[in-house]
Amino acid sequence: MPVIDLSEEELRLHRVTTPEPADLDEWWAAHLAKTTAAATPTSLTRHEPELYGPLEVHDVEFSGAHGHRVRGWFLRPRSDEPLPVVVTYIGYGGGRGLPAQHTLLPSAGYAVFVMDSRGQGGQWSVGATGDAGAGTGPEHPGVMTRGISSPDDYYYTRLFLDAARAVDVAAELPGVDPGRIGVTGGSQGGALALAASALRPGQVKVCHSDVPFLCDLHRAIHIGTTRPYTEISDFLAQHDALVPTVLRTLQYVDCALLARRITAASLLSVGLMDETCPPSTVYAAYHEISAPKEMTVSRFGKHTTPTSHVETQLRHFRDHL
Amino acid sequence: MPVIDLSEEELRLHRVTTPEPADLDEWWAAHLAKTTAAATPTSLTRHEPELYGPLEVHDVEFSGAHGHRVRGWFLRPRSDEPLPVVVTYIGYGGGRGLPAQHTLLPSAGYAVFVMDSRGQGGQWSVGATGDAGAGTGPEHPGVMTRGISSPDDYYYTRLFLDAARAVDVAAELPGVDPGRIGVTGGSQGGALALAASALRPGQVKVCHSDVPFLCDLHRAIHIGTTRPYTEISDFLAQHDALVPTVLRTLQYVDCALLARRITAASLLSVGLMDETCPPSTVYAAYHEISAPKEMTVSRFGKHTTPTSHVETQLRHFRDHL
Amino acid sequence: MPVIDLSEEELRLHRVTTPEPADLDEWWAAHLAKTTAAATPTSLTRHEPELYGPLEVHDVEFSGAHGHRVRGWFLRPRSDEPLPVVVTYIGYGGGRGLPAQHTLLPSAGYAVFVMDSRGQGGQWSVGATGDAGAGTGPEHPGVMTRGISSPDDYYYTRLFLDAARAVDVAAELPGVDPGRIGVTGGSQGGALALAASALRPGQVKVCHSDVPFLCDLHRAIHIGTTRPYTEISDFLAQHDALVPTVLRTLQYVDCALLARRITAASLLSVGLMDETCPPSTVYAAYHEISAPKEMTVSRFGKHTTPTSHVETQLRHFRDHL
Amino acid sequence: MPVIDLSEEELRLHRVTTPEPADLDEWWAAHLAKTTAAATPTSLTRHEPELYGPLEVHDVEFSGAHGHRVRGWFLRPRSDEPLPVVVTYIGYGGGRGLPAQHTLLPSAGYAVFVMDSRGQGGQWSVGATGDAGAGTGPEHPGVMTRGISSPDDYYYTRLFLDAARAVDVAAELPGVDPGRIGVTGGSQGGALALAASALRPGQVKVCHSDVPFLCDLHRAIHIGTTRPYTEISDFLAQHDALVPTVLRTLQYVDCALLARRITAASLLSVGLMDETCPPSTVYAAYHEISAPKEMTVSRFGKHTTPTSHVETQLRHFRDHL
Amino acid sequence: MPVIDLSEEELRLHRVTTPEPADLDEWWAAHLAKTTAAATPTSLTRHEPELYGPLEVHDVEFSGAHGHRVRGWFLRPRSDEPLPVVVTYIGYGGGRGLPAQHTLLPSAGYAVFVMDSRGQGGQWSVGATGDAGAGTGPEHPGVMTRGISSPDDYYYTRLFLDAARAVDVAAELPGVDPGRIGVTGGSQGGALALAASALRPGQVKVCHSDVPFLCDLHRAIHIGTTRPYTEISDFLAQHDALVPTVLRTLQYVDCALLARRITAASLLSVGLMDETCPPSTVYAAYHEISAPKEMTVSRFGKHTTPTSHVETQLRHFRDHL
Amino acid sequence: MPVIDLSEEELRLHRVTTPEPADLDEWWAAHLAKTTAAATPTSLTRHEPELYGPLEVHDVEFSGAHGHRVRGWFLRPRSDEPLPVVVTYIGYGGGRGLPAQHTLLPSAGYAVFVMDSRGQGGQWSVGATGDAGAGTGPEHPGVMTRGISSPDDYYYTRLFLDAARAVDVAAELPGVDPGRIGVTGGSQGGALALAASALRPGQVKVCHSDVPFLCDLHRAIHIGTTRPYTEISDFLAQHDALVPTVLRTLQYVDCALLARRITAASLLSVGLMDETCPPSTVYAAYHEISAPKEMTVSRFGKHTTPTSHVETQLRHFRDHL
Repeated sequence: MPVIDLSEEELRLHRVTTPEPADLDEWWAAHLAKTTAAATPTSLTRHEPELYGPLEVHDVEFSGAHGHRVRGWFLRPRSDEPLPVVVTYIGYGGGRGLPAQHTLLPSAGYAVFVMDSRGQGGQWSVGATGDAGAGTGPEHPGVMTRGISSPDDYYYTRLFLDAARAVDVAAELPGVDPGRIGVTGGSQGGALALAASALRPGQVKVCHSDVPFLCDLHRAIHIGTTRPYTEISDFLAQHDALVPTVLRTLQYVDCALLARRITAASLLSVGLMDETCPPSTVYAAYHEISAPKEMTVSRFGKHTTPTSHVETQLRHFRDHL
Repeated sequence: MPVIDLSEEELRLHRVTTPEPADLDEWWAAHLAKTTAAATPTSLTRHEPELYGPLEVHDVEFSGAHGHRVRGWFLRPRSDEPLPVVVTYIGYGGGRGLPAQHTLLPSAGYAVFVMDSRGQGGQWSVGATGDAGAGTGPEHPGVMTRGISSPDDYYYTRLFLDAARAVDVAAELPGVDPGRIGVTGGSQGGALALAASALRPGQVKVCHSDVPFLCDLHRAIHIGTTRPYTEISDFLAQHDALVPTVLRTLQYVDCALLARRITAASLLSVGLMDETCPPSTVYAAYHEISAPKEMTVSRFGKHTTPTSHVETQLRHFRDHL
Repeated sequence: MPVIDLSEEELRLHRVTTPEPADLDEWWAAHLAKTTAAATPTSLTRHEPELYGPLEVHDVEFSGAHGHRVRGWFLRPRSDEPLPVVVTYIGYGGGRGLPAQHTLLPSAGYAVFVMDSRGQGGQWSVGATGDAGAGTGPEHPGVMTRGISSPDDYYYTRLFLDAARAVDVAAELPGVDPGRIGVTGGSQGGALALAASALRPGQVKVCHSDVPFLCDLHRAIHIGTTRPYTEISDFLAQHDALVPTVLRTLQYVDCALLARRITAASLLSVGLMDETCPPSTVYAAYHEISAPKEMTVSRFGKHTTPTSHVETQLRHFRDHL
Repeated sequence: MPVIDLSEEELRLHRVTTPEPADLDEWWAAHLAKTTAAATPTSLTRHEPELYGPLEVHDVEFSGAHGHRVRGWFLRPRSDEPLPVVVTYIGYGGGRGLPAQHTLLPSAGYAVFVMDSRGQGGQWSVGATGDAGAGTGPEHPGVMTRGISSPDDYYYTRLFLDAARAVDVAAELPGVDPGRIGVTGGSQGGALALAASALRPGQVKVCHSDVPFLCDLHRAIHIGTTRPYTEISDFLAQHDALVPTVLRTLQYVDCALLARRITAASLLSVGLMDETCPPSTVYAAYHEISAPKEMTVSRFGKHTTPTSHVETQLRHFRDHL
Repeated sequence: MPVIDLSEEELRLHRVTTPEPADLDEWWAAHLAKTTAAATPTSLTRHEPELYGPLEVHDVEFSGAHGHRVRGWFLRPRSDEPLPVVVTYIGYGGGRGLPAQHTLLPSAGYAVFVMDSRGQGGQWSVGATGDAGAGTGPEHPGVMTRGISSPDDYYYTRLFLDAARAVDVAAELPGVDPGRIGVTGGSQGGALALAASALRPGQVKVCHSDVPFLCDLHRAIHIGTTRPYTEISDFLAQHDALVPTVLRTLQYVDCALLARRITAASLLSVGLMDETCPPSTVYAAYHEISAPKEMTVSRFGKHTTPTSHVETQLRHFRDHL
Repeated sequence: MPVIDLSEEELRLHRVTTPEPADLDEWWAAHLAKTTAAATPTSLTRHEPELYGPLEVHDVEFSGAHGHRVRGWFLRPRSDEPLPVVVTYIGYGGGRGLPAQHTLLPSAGYAVFVMDSRGQGGQWSVGATGDAGAGTGPEHPGVMTRGISSPDDYYYTRLFLDAARAVDVAAELPGVDPGRIGVTGGSQGGALALAASALRPGQVKVCHSDVPFLCDLHRAIHIGTTRPYTEISDFLAQHDALVPTVLRTLQYVDCALLARRITAASLLSVGLMDETCPPSTVYAAYHEISAPKEMTVSRFGKHTTPTSHVETQLRHFRDHL
């Protein structure tokens, strides 16, 4: 549906109004510390060397939240020098897929580290990682309400911790320049790119986030008309007693609030006809970033990255990474 | 859609062709034993005594699979004598709801013990129990693929164990006659009624199973065109390498195979236009029951219990419980 | 769709603007008098005494509008004293169903009199009463446009008269305390509860109306996007010459206007995401009630009664009936 | 959906298997006699003489079933001689509309008498006639289940009687040759054309029936997947106890059975992709006609008259009327 | 969906804000001149004289844009005098159909010239004319984006030129009074009626335009939620680099801008619930017409001509043609 | 929908039954010769050298059917030796997109030549080529019916000629080994891969065709229930007179018939739940290939390439190209 949400002028003025929890930074610091403490060594297994030719591919397993093992792909084009590396996050319902789906950046000379999304991967690209930390309450199908009655148990807390850890892991992968780390992703992947940049502010140099999910969450669950946001509103339609609890949990994983911590050079994109991640919620995050930033606005765009934006991203990586 | 699936003659002849795993009985026996061993005492908390008048309601917590705590409701009409008790299981996506939704059988003189479904309850009636044992692999939204790569980790193994335990628990509830236990439910609840009857053959005297889910599973995932069966077929469309693994897992929780172990007087129902649980899969289970049995066939019925069937059930309880 | 209709502040200020017909009270008085005059004795037939155990159930037939015979169920828990009685009305498309569906209030110690809806009952629960007074003009499928070219012929005039008569009948049922009559229902049933309370203001002591239909009708047919309201807007899309006629008819059955006559202690509910009965139309009725009143607001609720509201209702009955 | 229903060979062999009620002819004879006896004079009112120019249009009111007044349009091109007349029946949900919609046959030199469908007209073309004989039981929205618990009360009994009466009335309209009466219609209108030809076998000389509804009804309600046939199957899904009653009622109005009585030169059409009136049900009626007959088969046709068929019809009228 | 778009007050105030291209008149004049220059003689072939009786029908072929041959139907009732003629244009996806579909105006004494729509006719009524001038860029299915990267290549430039030529051709048809030419059509046909009136201002005496398409196009592609407008917004969602180019092309074929050139007595219609051609876009065109004008407003109308409007049109033709 | 179409056994036996046109080979030979004769030199323009790093990308323009200029992308990884080249064709509705979308094969050491699809590209990936040869008759939206009344004018004749020319062009691209040409594509792209292999049998060494479209076309338009096949069946529902003409046209572009001419080592894929390109039509093509062949069968697969199949393809290219 065209012209949903606010007008173009209103989008420029719109700001997130949800207050930050007083303990937001301490809370994340504590969780990050615990996660780091629980980590065991990363393992790399060479994948199908004869198929991918000059491209070196490894199947990776590393420690995410609670020390749970998370899978990933590491793709590195042949080069004698340390390469910049881009951590890639996946959209909702998908998994890391196969290395064959991630060859663009290696073709252009970057190493890539693809993080699998725990407990996802059954809808549009295969996954390989379970969610060992399932929550303690009832759930709506999908992961949006898993553990939602407490920020400590919430699925997205675990996934954000995985994402932050993926940055640490990327820095230590062989043949990688740890001073040149970028992150990228679309939709849920875009949210993870924002979150990882916010939680690892010194380390991430460039942040690409396309049509990001999980921004301005209080607004999003009120105006969102499609899954995945409706997983939460449908759940609350049943569990009306849980409304305050859930709103509180969401404050800890709202990327529009976390965005204030980003120091990476940032490139976002937004579609003004996007019904899945309404444009106002994306603008809400964009406006909170104080680092150098740009945003590609697709006037008729829906929930997909604008067509020519991929080359804009290559240019941005070339200039900033 | 009318006249899906087989014709009425073919339904009479249709039999499940999936072979039983050789270790089916031992496998369940081992899991049941472990579950019993892990159990801690059941707790009862009186619920809103002033609201329900003569009906005594308790909020129950008991130990299910892996000793995980599962919630339930116990409703008992005032009576000086021990009463027969009916364990009630809930359909897919729902939870135990409120006691107010379960007053029919108490009105007719039966105690009722409603078992919550772990990790469900966000779609149409509230739940109160999380799924502490989430699986180890990727998932499609919903619980159908949770842990599906191994029968030991599969969600429905846990849920069937909860259901069997609920029978044990019911037998020990106050004011209940442990020799008069029935089970009942529709759709997923109907599957749980069959499973509990099969796993607790001596204890369950009457089994009511309406338009049951999870029967003749290999067939069901091939012909099912709606959720929840398509959660599995959609998952396998992505994960084609997992087809044999998944088919093996399903053999352990197929109610058409387990039905052979039922000794309870059984009353089923089936809708010949049911697209959610196609009639052939229901007939497949019905034909395997060797205990006394009846089935209400609704010629134009979809995935709901036939209208007058509820009074047929009251009559059947009166005659057999 | 979340956040339809007005904002929460606007809802608090919204008032029905449709003027009352000058003769509204006389018109209803005349129709009620005619209806009473046409009444013949109520008949009661004992229903399945062996099935419902201690609960006494009767199949009732009484005289509604034009003296047409209307069916109902009378459920009375065993008690030596006269009991308060709650008249229950049914939602759109459904009928009185079976007594088994109405056991909650008897369990809590109330007698219940369920009124069937004439000419309905084919969509989600069986009915047993035809509509002997079908209208004199063309119709859109459903009953919303039946006889709509005149308030005298309109289907809902007949149904409101049935509902008022049901209150009279309830007062005379055996073992009932005629001074303690409540009414209840959801959606169309909620509209009938409001209408019966307004048309029998002395008699009805408590009025429960969930997500009521047929309020602020002029607004409702303009903003309603789903059936049943669209039955009227679709009809008027064809019959544009009938717009003024239809708007006039609707003024006589608008529960937001009738609500001013309610004297019963009232408990309503509303879902802020309700697309079937948009929240502004419910607020419009609520604001016109001058009797003691409360309303449960479900912030993410759709067209269903909020989950815990059923216990709020039990509490309200206990305190006010 | 292409290639539904039987294959082309099977269609040629398919025959209706529902037995005729033993009293079918007497039953209709009695109803027709009663209808004729109740008739009062037809009235004609000149309609907008200045708008339609040389075409003379009258608004007609005549006596249908039970003597109820039914509306129609009479269009007659200027001519000094008596003209052949074609009675036109309307499809489901529509009414007689305006004369402007019926000018084809007058342009080609025929008088036309358009019969309104009682209680319809709110969905796609305006109607002007109510259904004074509404049934005695519950209903599914639409008219398919109105009075369906008895052939005497059934809506379609009334509508077929109206249709037969329209033939009588047409014969007496001014400037008409009573020896040259044709009937025509599509879908429900096609059913009425068949029924009128069967109930007035001497009088109707030519019968045009496009993609007719209400043929081979027992089969139709089992295989029909769209409205209006699903109005009946959905009703029976609720009212399973009424299945035998409803099947009996349908035997009296099955146009495949009535078709045996047709003596008119008949021209039908069928679409092999028609999901509303599946082709096998149309073939079932066609095969029972023993009068001279033709059928236009549209291999990819859905529920619309094949494009060039309208000129085939003009040719057939020219040759047979 | 009821009450889309602006409120009734806002509609009265709404004006198109898109600026006219500076060369709009010269551009069209040049194209019209080239089209006229390329024309070859019109051919007429008598069609089925025996079927249509007193109505004379010819299959017409004339020269449209670029001299491409375009088909049409010419229907003329028998008359010794020259007759007024109405050029009829067809809605989106349809073609000229058969003469049988166009008999209303001949019945009322007018000659009719039906113009086929090039490259359309496969969706709801048959066409007979190809689009010889297909564009030079990528396309979305449908014709809305064909050649859209330049006004010279755009499909609708060709179709508007065909429409203007049809007026010239109509003036020269046998038995026609060239001083009494009207145009009519609905949706796309309504746009063509407006365009032809604007491009042939001296010649067209009466313009009927129902629920017209292609008005206030910049607004329409932003607020339109259904096909055909979404063909353009979906195309631009992909081709975001083409947004300015496409907006420029649309300025040349916007009927709200062209409407300022209309001198014909105009009768429009609009549905306030029309989602295909939102009411504000129709009002935008209506407000720009400075010739005598009327508009039928259907308060609940969707994308269809209001029912009684057809007789309003007959009256308007009688009074003004 | 699971288990559509034939069973697995039937699929193994199913053969295309449409006869080949007698002149099939001469007809194509003549068209190919004319196309070659009309060709002008291919042009290459370097694309964004700084963005794609070591990967050399050119924007290509070459002569397709009728000498019309067609666009493409040429991607070549840095290498001193001539490389094998894979011609890539695009699925229905899409265009060549950006080079960034085609980096997999270059990463693995192959040059890639991506052919744009004329007149497509507005639905899911941008295109850059118009269809200069638009047909001569009416059309259904989409390209399936463009020019369908004659094989000479049919859109797919032009597109197949473009595809054959793309093979010739690929052989002459700089740094390519003309003796090592492969083709690949999915859906429409898979059809083009089959067609190009059949029309350039000596030249194409390896043919990869995923879930191919345009096979066993007579069957496909009868059983296909989704677009694009329904573009043809919907068109024929209107234009029933054109059925034989259209069936004849389709015989010239049926890839199951053309497949007999393939000499390339072939690797196909099929989804047994594919509703867009039903499995029987894919098997029909597969069975006609007499060259060495394999097919990946995805038992629950829909209209997408099976997940792990992409690595199977890399292996097949490595072994055969």
